[in-house]
Amino acid sequence: MATVGLVSDAAASAEVRRVFDDIRATRGTDFINNFWRALANDPALLAATWGRLKAVMGQGELDPLTKEMIYIAVSVANGCEYCVHSHTAAARGKGMTAAMHGEMMAVIGMAAQTNSLATALQVPVDDAFSA
Amino acid sequence: MATVGLVSDAAASAEVRRVFDDIRATRGTDFINNFWRALANDPALLAATWGRLKAVMGQGELDPLTKEMIYIAVSVANGCEYCVHSHTAAARGKGMTAAMHGEMMAVIGMAAQTNSLATALQVPVDDAFSA
Amino acid sequence: MATVGLVSDAAASAEVRRVFDDIRATRGTDFINNFWRALANDPALLAATWGRLKAVMGQGELDPLTKEMIYIAVSVANGCEYCVHSHTAAARGKGMTAAMHGEMMAVIGMAAQTNSLATALQVPVDDAFSA
Amino acid sequence: MATVGLVSDAAASAEVRRVFDDIRATRGTDFINNFWRALANDPALLAATWGRLKAVMGQGELDPLTKEMIYIAVSVANGCEYCVHSHTAAARGKGMTAAMHGEMMAVIGMAAQTNSLATALQVPVDDAFSA
Amino acid sequence: MATVGLVSDAAASAEVRRVFDDIRATRGTDFINNFWRALANDPALLAATWGRLKAVMGQGELDPLTKEMIYIAVSVANGCEYCVHSHTAAARGKGMTAAMHGEMMAVIGMAAQTNSLATALQVPVDDAFSA
Amino acid sequence: MATVGLVSDAAASAEVRRVFDDIRATRGTDFINNFWRALANDPALLAATWGRLKAVMGQGELDPLTKEMIYIAVSVANGCEYCVHSHTAAARGKGMTAAMHGEMMAVIGMAAQTNSLATALQVPVDDAFSA
Repeated sequence: MATVGLVSDAAASAEVRRVFDDIRATRGTDFINNFWRALANDPALLAATWGRLKAVMGQGELDPLTKEMIYIAVSVANGCEYCVHSHTAAARGKGMTAAMHGEMMAVIGMAAQTNSLATALQVPVDDAFSA
Repeated sequence: MATVGLVSDAAASAEVRRVFDDIRATRGTDFINNFWRALANDPALLAATWGRLKAVMGQGELDPLTKEMIYIAVSVANGCEYCVHSHTAAARGKGMTAAMHGEMMAVIGMAAQTNSLATALQVPVDDAFSA
Repeated sequence: MATVGLVSDAAASAEVRRVFDDIRATRGTDFINNFWRALANDPALLAATWGRLKAVMGQGELDPLTKEMIYIAVSVANGCEYCVHSHTAAARGKGMTAAMHGEMMAVIGMAAQTNSLATALQVPVDDAFSA
Repeated sequence: MATVGLVSDAAASAEVRRVFDDIRATRGTDFINNFWRALANDPALLAATWGRLKAVMGQGELDPLTKEMIYIAVSVANGCEYCVHSHTAAARGKGMTAAMHGEMMAVIGMAAQTNSLATALQVPVDDAFSA
Repeated sequence: MATVGLVSDAAASAEVRRVFDDIRATRGTDFINNFWRALANDPALLAATWGRLKAVMGQGELDPLTKEMIYIAVSVANGCEYCVHSHTAAARGKGMTAAMHGEMMAVIGMAAQTNSLATALQVPVDDAFSA
Repeated sequence: MATVGLVSDAAASAEVRRVFDDIRATRGTDFINNFWRALANDPALLAATWGRLKAVMGQGELDPLTKEMIYIAVSVANGCEYCVHSHTAAARGKGMTAAMHGEMMAVIGMAAQTNSLATALQVPVDDAFSA
């Protein structure tokens, strides 16, 4: 269960409806996933979050699939169940193969392991890494 | 300061020396960063960690730069200062431009934000995300 | 499922019963939520945890609702599903409106975002922030 | 050291200068803290982050000091050194007394403790918490 | 639901079967828990992870039960529901009593609390702790 | 730098002095580490935290060294620099050898790695783990 209700299309205010329409148009699907229906309890937060996501996740110097994998990596480290599911599905929709998924798992696991070792050993940062 | 001493070349055992040599040969540099010198207090842990890192981070279905960016994303979410520095430097060495770095920042920030919102709202996972 | 059994009133020892009675008297309700029933497997841990919570969460320089919102913020960042639910319910019981909840969401999301950016950029602390 | 350079006023582009000017005008001080100087390496990210922060942290249903304390709570749980310093200083600037700070510490510590207990015991969410 | 399918014995490749056989022989049980069935989607990751776990978790300078409790402590702090369950069950199988579990809870809770206080106060590391 | 001042013996109130005296007597040393000097800004928080630590960390069903290693594991996962240093020093003072430290590192690293894999794969908890 969520800590708030999920806003249905029927219950959506005009401001919410405008965002839902833009999500549908941008993604080319009628489906609105629960994250947006939960955020819709606060229309201003919904609009700001969707607007920023749309700006950030499109094609740029990094391609959308690479961005989705970075998103998954953060979501795993933060332990966000919903986000792991939604962005793994999104990455598959953008072409992530099983082999790519497996390699991403290996990198995420390796990073988590060495993060904990570097923290446990309190390794001093090398001067060579200076920007 | 570290919680252990950093093992110098002079103090390295034969097993440690073998790993240091492989790090140098693989990377084409004489430089051994502090992480490996700290791990060298436990030669078996050093060898296992380096061996796995070498296997995981090479070219595969994902290219080495994409892997470094996934590594950075995990390291940021885990708050590992050393790892953020070392892998940001590594990503630059593999071709990450300032523009790519900026986009990665935007994705990491967006993911952290929506992770916290999805967790705060306890959004139920949509059936549509089923694998 | 829990990793321990939940202690029912019937199965409660005298020490557990004493704490359950105090929870009921303090909160003015007969309801004992599952957290305390799980902790009751170790009566000393139950007593110490409840005693401290009661001392910390009452009226002081900060009002109880502000304390609940700080509690929620920590629980979200730590990804504790149970705690997010229980303290969101508690905050509503203490007067948190939907509008206040929405603003808290925005602040939590903003903090998570800038936390990750400051960590990713390893921004040096300004001297001006000195206590 | 940061993973990027800190952008000085002299090196600021027109877009960066516009944001710096707005920070100065909004806060009534000439001081620009390092977070913004680091973000300024990506002017679009700087503008988006500042714009959102300004919208989120002002007076609303919650007062600015309450928002700062929520921000601190998230920053502590995420282990962001910079953010803990900057928002503790900001909270003091908005009226947080030593006594309020002490109570906030107690709440943050209590939340972290019970978060870990609820996670370790995997306590099932009570139906009574349903939104 | 998982983000990948769980590999049944019938669907296991020769490489996966070899690892499953070793898990069964090492543990003296026919039962393969879901973690390994999920990892089996990437046989190389399965083999590397199991091989390392087997090497790390056996008798050494630390006994297997102490190692399981350290494992639980990390899993709780990382908020990994699956790992908390699997390693709590494993620790019980290796002799952890209810009283030991209760003391471990108290230590984990205490650590989480003081971690957050030390971070919130940004306490400088004492020279006396130097390795 | 800390976010609060560190309370010297000279500046300690009677209540703080009482706690400092008890720390000294319990530990058999005149040394008071910075954590307590920072907490001393709020005497009630100092007294409650020290009192609980003293109760939790002594000999019980688990020995003090095992408790210190569990404490370190949590502190590493939470990324608390101060706590990693202070409890690693404490564990050494209670007999942790370099070999034990190395094994603990391996377990912590393994746990962090499999935590991230189980979360990334969203592995469903096996019925067999039921308490």
